Amino acid sequence: MTLFEKIAAREIPAQIVHETADVIAFRDISPKAPTHVLVVPKKAIPRIDEATEDDAPLLGRLLMEASAVARQLGLAKSGYRLVINNGKDGGESVPHLHIHLLGGRPLAWPPG
Amino acid sequence: MTLFEKIAAREIPAQIVHETADVIAFRDISPKAPTHVLVVPKKAIPRIDEATEDDAPLLGRLLMEASAVARQLGLAKSGYRLVINNGKDGGESVPHLHIHLLGGRPLAWPPG
Repeated sequence: MTLFEKIAAREIPAQIVHETADVIAFRDISPKAPTHVLVVPKKAIPRIDEATEDDAPLLGRLLMEASAVARQLGLAKSGYRLVINNGKDGGESVPHLHIHLLGGRPLAWPPG
Repeated sequence: MTLFEKIAAREIPAQIVHETADVIAFRDISPKAPTHVLVVPKKAIPRIDEATEDDAPLLGRLLMEASAVARQLGLAKSGYRLVINNGKDGGESVPHLHIHLLGGRPLAWPPG
């Protein structure tokens, strides 16, 4: 199991902020903004480059849940950034697809 | 019409790299990496926070097309980052939903 599957299975603790049948969201353990949450499909797709056509609806859900979490955490008005890292140059860490949701401060440009 | 609708309608020139019935992708005019492309739904959703449940399949397509563009541009192996800015703290510029695809150099952390 991936680290994130273990979090979803409650085998590893995390500060879970949102959960649906397909998606789980929890605080990043090394936050880079006042709010920094990972929004993760329970299905262990390694990275966006490995998503298949069958995964397209799940990817749509993932973005919808990311914006729902942002609203839930009070970021909709002030704003936020969503980030997906794929592979080495992207800074991918855990090989289980996830969206970083960052907010609570102005995010600078360029994005890394 | 938004700036991006005008680009899709060929009323404003852009370096278009990919197009489907629902999505268009073109080079950012102020690139922040060797490859910096905007992947845009033709439907003018202002920002991810304003996507509705009806838009969920389109959002899935948008992520699928973003990774397809990355493959097309030779970034799949080296890696890349996808970024969506929502509102002021996110650094949102054009009020027409778009994904930034950046690659061709290591992207730093935090992402802005």
